[in-house]
Amino acid sequence: MFEVRVTADFAAAHFLRDYNGKCENLHGHNYKVYAHVRGSVLNEGGMLLDFTALKGALRTVCGRLDHTNLNDLAVFDQNPSAERIAKYIYDGVVAELAGQGVDLSYAAGKKEAVLFAVDVFETETSRARYRVDE
Amino acid sequence: MFEVRVTADFAAAHFLRDYNGKCENLHGHNYKVYAHVRGSVLNEGGMLLDFTALKGALRTVCGRLDHTNLNDLAVFDQNPSAERIAKYIYDGVVAELAGQGVDLSYAAGKKEAVLFAVDVFETETSRARYRVDE
Amino acid sequence: MFEVRVTADFAAAHFLRDYNGKCENLHGHNYKVYAHVRGSVLNEGGMLLDFTALKGALRTVCGRLDHTNLNDLAVFDQNPSAERIAKYIYDGVVAELAGQGVDLSYAAGKKEAVLFAVDVFETETSRARYRVDE
Repeated sequence: MFEVRVTADFAAAHFLRDYNGKCENLHGHNYKVYAHVRGSVLNEGGMLLDFTALKGALRTVCGRLDHTNLNDLAVFDQNPSAERIAKYIYDGVVAELAGQGVDLSYAAGKKEAVLFAVDVFETETSRARYRVDE
Repeated sequence: MFEVRVTADFAAAHFLRDYNGKCENLHGHNYKVYAHVRGSVLNEGGMLLDFTALKGALRTVCGRLDHTNLNDLAVFDQNPSAERIAKYIYDGVVAELAGQGVDLSYAAGKKEAVLFAVDVFETETSRARYRVDE
Repeated sequence: MFEVRVTADFAAAHFLRDYNGKCENLHGHNYKVYAHVRGSVLNEGGMLLDFTALKGALRTVCGRLDHTNLNDLAVFDQNPSAERIAKYIYDGVVAELAGQGVDLSYAAGKKEAVLFAVDVFETETSRARYRVDE
């Protein structure tokens, strides 16, 4: 089994509704994001998936969030928690690559590359992950 | 499935008994610690578990080790290896949050948040993990 | 279950054959490498495996790649992708420790320490992993 992980980032404002603490105030983060792909088949070049293709898709999706107020985006009519941002980016990367003819959707036992997790760091000390394989 | 990871640290002295090498000498580390929680249910605010609550518990437990000689602590009558420190912190965080009415204890198939792993870095290049889910 | 992770690095040149992009040009990286060991049995000293022994083996294997052109090495008659480098280092660490009487080979259900994954970072934003346990 092989895995590939690439990184991107974006900067955005957000706040948490109905939260009793500092996060109820509008603030922001330099979010760091990891996308994790796994599979057991390498292509002729020895790659599970080209780092460049995966980074491109991840950056495209993160670009939609960059320099926004997440609370103003229709996709975050619910609180833009790190958990929900991770799921949003997961879905976005799968859709983005599907549009390029690359199927990273998850299925149990699939040997080809699948996107299995996305990590969102609000800070170096706080990370949320969305994963589909467990 | 979602995961949350938070970080804390502490500085302590330790040495390893019956060890043939540099670690038999009293020395110390800036230990870095990760606590990993997982579960499939988000609360109304979109969170698996509030970062702040988990960090608070982790810091409380790490605070008991901070600026001590680990070999002097009753809990480490056996060698304070990074593996044992990780298990000590795991148990401490579960107990600390139980005292606050938050049940992070592990059970197979449990959908609510569980603490599934604790990492202890002695240095940037040496990490031990204790995990309960595999 | 416990895990131990240690880190090493090496600097090498490489390029990717039959690749349409920047990686087809001879270039190089400061590769960073993680070796991951897991098991459920600690020794009398409280360790799954001595960090020092694992680091020594990892550094020995990485040393064979350090300051080389990976494309010139017989083991990389196929493209020296990060995925293949990870597998090469995995096999090398198991063999190196076997030569020292330490059996880290993987078997399902084995309680003693096994090497279960090796990570190779080409850059901070691009990591490949080879793992044997899933």
